[in-house]
Amino acid sequence: MRTFKLTIAYDGTAYAGWQVQPKRDTVQSAMEKAVASITGQTARVTASGRTDAGVHALGQVVSFSVETDLEPDVLLRAINAETPDDVAVIDAAEVPAGFHPIRDAVSKRYRYVIRDGAVPDVFDRQYCWHYRHGRLDDKAMARAAEGLLGKHDFSSFETSGAPRESSVRTVYDIVIRRGDSQQGRAVSQQGRAVSQQGRAGEGDRIVLEIEADGFLYNMVRAIVGTLVEVGRGAQSEAWPAEVLARTDRRAAGPTAPPQGLFLLEVDYPGP
Amino acid sequence: MRTFKLTIAYDGTAYAGWQVQPKRDTVQSAMEKAVASITGQTARVTASGRTDAGVHALGQVVSFSVETDLEPDVLLRAINAETPDDVAVIDAAEVPAGFHPIRDAVSKRYRYVIRDGAVPDVFDRQYCWHYRHGRLDDKAMARAAEGLLGKHDFSSFETSGAPRESSVRTVYDIVIRRGDSQQGRAVSQQGRAVSQQGRAGEGDRIVLEIEADGFLYNMVRAIVGTLVEVGRGAQSEAWPAEVLARTDRRAAGPTAPPQGLFLLEVDYPGP
Repeated sequence: MRTFKLTIAYDGTAYAGWQVQPKRDTVQSAMEKAVASITGQTARVTASGRTDAGVHALGQVVSFSVETDLEPDVLLRAINAETPDDVAVIDAAEVPAGFHPIRDAVSKRYRYVIRDGAVPDVFDRQYCWHYRHGRLDDKAMARAAEGLLGKHDFSSFETSGAPRESSVRTVYDIVIRRGDSQQGRAVSQQGRAVSQQGRAGEGDRIVLEIEADGFLYNMVRAIVGTLVEVGRGAQSEAWPAEVLARTDRRAAGPTAPPQGLFLLEVDYPGP
Repeated sequence: MRTFKLTIAYDGTAYAGWQVQPKRDTVQSAMEKAVASITGQTARVTASGRTDAGVHALGQVVSFSVETDLEPDVLLRAINAETPDDVAVIDAAEVPAGFHPIRDAVSKRYRYVIRDGAVPDVFDRQYCWHYRHGRLDDKAMARAAEGLLGKHDFSSFETSGAPRESSVRTVYDIVIRRGDSQQGRAVSQQGRAVSQQGRAGEGDRIVLEIEADGFLYNMVRAIVGTLVEVGRGAQSEAWPAEVLARTDRRAAGPTAPPQGLFLLEVDYPGP
């Protein structure tokens, strides 16, 4: 048996999330079908974490073990030929048999994209939260987010019912920027056309990135929903830190919608 | 009766093109349904030109005439509330009754996006031509394109069967650039993740923009297909100008696929 670690990207729009479910299209089942088709073996494909319906990935890490003579590069191309167009393997490597994508991960980074322009962006509708109620104060959101950095009990930002041994996590980095086309998606096209009309432009996008040693269920979306309360002026910049200190989900803002969320990368020890 | 000029964007993926067809979803029928729903009147919505199935628009211009007391800004928001998420009005203005979006246009600009990376980009699959056979020489393509600038009979680049009074058009500008995130779409996201894997990156995208006083049927896609023959080394840089001089569609390269094409803007006289 050989164990492979794949880095995959997917457009989550058409999927009921990562995890296999009866009678639903999921990314895990798409990957397992592709592996079975190539190797003739039924292998469980395990991910660094589940993503929910509509959530996307740019650098999800998955692994599986099969008997094969195929080298990683060949496997990459073979799987890409089998998966639907909205799932792609972008890197493949052979790893030691004990590799486990959840247990071995040392950090993960997510991106969340908000648009706060008045005019819808037809190309971005499945890849951002379109906040339609006016401009958000991204600088206030960025200052408020600083209160969430570091090692804390994040249970205020965990959807209840998810059993965990501990809800303590360490947030290493939170970056919030407006209108950075290097960070966001598809800014450019409609952004440019619209700005020529003098109505809106690239400044319509707020991109948040957050990195931590791990995330609780719905943690990024709960943090985003909480920061948007600050951005729209409903809460003070100090409030997210107060929410954190309460360790009570009811203290936080609403959960932001899934389609703005992207799993960006998962880091493992080693070179 | 009042006449309105709208600038609209659409994701052409789900549509059988612009023009109304029986039993097919088209952008024109989506617009006409929205106008009818708001004004209670059946109005023909006319565009600056038809786009084919799968072709997108960032700045299509359309017009229609109705009896209404609604001001353009109100109309914009009302239509956006009625159209599907993949069609959006980005600008609205009242114009003199004689305005005609085809006849009055003085120039149009299109964008065509090619990806030549080995790894598929799941977020771009409906918004580019993924050329899977190796790197294209974008600089050779740019030099070759210079031979198409100016006033010429472009019938070599016109899909036959389309009746036109004249196939003479003036090409004002052709720009071909690799990996420019300001010009292309969605470069950033997967581009960044992939480049961190050391496999591919933003340089995977070639963006062509072309501006002319008008375009023949399939002209942009035939020009792109011809330039790709140069880019892949099958033809010389001088060849596209030779194709042009032949005034024979059979001389040109294949027609590039529709999903890489975007109608970018349409210009009209006046301030």
